[in-house]
Amino acid sequence: METEPRHRIYRDEMKSVFQDILQRHGMKEQKALLCAEIFMINSLEGIYSHGVNRFPRFVKYLDEGYIKPDAEPTLVHSSGSIEQWEGNLGPGPLNAVFATDRAMQLASANGIGLVALANTNHWMRGGYYGWHAARKGFVFIGWANTCVNMPAWGGKDARIGNNPFVIAVPHDPEAIVLDFAMTQFSYGRMEAYQHEGLKLPFPGGFNKNGELTDDPGAILEAMRPVPIGYWKGAGLSLLLDILAATLSGGLSTHQIGSCDKETNISQVFISIDMAKLGKQNFIKGTIDNIISDLKKSEAAGPDSDIRYPGEGVVRTRKTNTGLGIPVDKGLWDKILAL
Amino acid sequence: METEPRHRIYRDEMKSVFQDILQRHGMKEQKALLCAEIFMINSLEGIYSHGVNRFPRFVKYLDEGYIKPDAEPTLVHSSGSIEQWEGNLGPGPLNAVFATDRAMQLASANGIGLVALANTNHWMRGGYYGWHAARKGFVFIGWANTCVNMPAWGGKDARIGNNPFVIAVPHDPEAIVLDFAMTQFSYGRMEAYQHEGLKLPFPGGFNKNGELTDDPGAILEAMRPVPIGYWKGAGLSLLLDILAATLSGGLSTHQIGSCDKETNISQVFISIDMAKLGKQNFIKGTIDNIISDLKKSEAAGPDSDIRYPGEGVVRTRKTNTGLGIPVDKGLWDKILAL
Repeated sequence: METEPRHRIYRDEMKSVFQDILQRHGMKEQKALLCAEIFMINSLEGIYSHGVNRFPRFVKYLDEGYIKPDAEPTLVHSSGSIEQWEGNLGPGPLNAVFATDRAMQLASANGIGLVALANTNHWMRGGYYGWHAARKGFVFIGWANTCVNMPAWGGKDARIGNNPFVIAVPHDPEAIVLDFAMTQFSYGRMEAYQHEGLKLPFPGGFNKNGELTDDPGAILEAMRPVPIGYWKGAGLSLLLDILAATLSGGLSTHQIGSCDKETNISQVFISIDMAKLGKQNFIKGTIDNIISDLKKSEAAGPDSDIRYPGEGVVRTRKTNTGLGIPVDKGLWDKILAL
Repeated sequence: METEPRHRIYRDEMKSVFQDILQRHGMKEQKALLCAEIFMINSLEGIYSHGVNRFPRFVKYLDEGYIKPDAEPTLVHSSGSIEQWEGNLGPGPLNAVFATDRAMQLASANGIGLVALANTNHWMRGGYYGWHAARKGFVFIGWANTCVNMPAWGGKDARIGNNPFVIAVPHDPEAIVLDFAMTQFSYGRMEAYQHEGLKLPFPGGFNKNGELTDDPGAILEAMRPVPIGYWKGAGLSLLLDILAATLSGGLSTHQIGSCDKETNISQVFISIDMAKLGKQNFIKGTIDNIISDLKKSEAAGPDSDIRYPGEGVVRTRKTNTGLGIPVDKGLWDKILAL
């Protein structure tokens, strides 16, 4: 399914190109460096859709003023283990790293910490912040609301978001990181299947007659992707939006509106410091034993690969570190011209 | 789809019958009263599977010693806004109410509170604790692990649990409460469809040839229910189990093992005190506006009913308060003989 890469760029080169472009489009050196690092790592780890493939849009948003290159979060309200921050439309990945670190600091002090962030920008790949926290021994639970891109359950016009949700825990040698959106397949994924003339591996939405289908073109025509678990994922999307907006004091999905200009997003970052728990000797063994039991699964088919969330990321990182990060030649040329 | 009720029992009568039975099976008066209330409310609100229908099994577990009628949770470890409690195999609903209240107390002090409970018993309906907290102005996020009842993604033998997950927020006049398990359809639901000779409304699992199907009999034969969102729900189940076991210091799903004797469960209760947030005037309006926008959805079909999670519960409660709680006559006779 994955398009054969026509071109590969080594990690250091990609990062350096990104940093240079970001600086030329208004970001100061240190901010551009961290932002470039995050876009590169997301690409290196195989999440191209929220790495290199989305980089031009990020630059466009900088140029159009939706992303304020110098803005930093400011504290609005604090109450014990909870803090509410205003994102001031700063770069999403920088705001999100800041909020993750702050939630970890609160967790170090109080066992658990929650940071809610209003008026920020797209964090790109939520899993990045999960890896960031879990590698340092923290649990991470985080989510964002998004623009309007999916119908409510029982509706046919888009009203809710595909609100990404992340849970991460430490695990030797790094972490277990679950990072998923509320639509069964992203629009980008469905477009790729359609482009290849393929059916989706599972039903992914409704056609214009309201019938469940695995035909990506029919779903894209009706604009009716299905939420994970049908009514369950639609409900989860709604609750994540309610929590993101109320906890941050920011906008909800229906206020964020169109996906053409997705900004003023609300996000939540919860962290738990594993070092603050009792039974310290028990934690690592418990996680190891759960994964070890999972791996004893009887494979459903000859191609079955029983993995824990994030396991593939480590393999992809290794491959792409060695061979370079695959990128469409046309896209890379476009980026070099930014 | 719902079986036509042959019998209805008024709420006070059901509660009184439950209390009497629980006392005769070893529970002290006050504990029996609260336990009876929870089983009755779950039934009154339409969650019969975790109310009246499961009551005989609860009594059986009391008789067999899996549930200790007098046991109460004891504090094992405390760190700021986090507490770890040992459930001592007390009655699941009583331990869960206790843990919810304790998480709310921690939230009142620190904005957010987390209580993890090891070695407890089935909480019946997780949504009960969500309603309990949200009616008092608190956010509730909670989950439990379960016995082994679903294959891992890519596997065909049961390795993971259907781990229920609950999110609740206050909303006039009561709450929005999402309460769902990780399997697309419960075994009980699939058995009911099979009994009626009906197909499931959506694909619910794999048959013995590994093909996705809406035939409940074929799924039950293969014992391969599908997780919500396929690989996504399988991942969420795994992470919820890891968190429940590590945060509580208790057992994980693979250790809980067979569903014939589901005990020593691990649970997590997170609460956030909405009164501790800034922008207090903003909260109610934000939630109202999200729901109001949801209700503007264009209906997908003539029978579409655009609801928020928990909205149906209030209607069912009203109906069943007036007419009595529907219960199978044979089941009720069996309960009266306990």
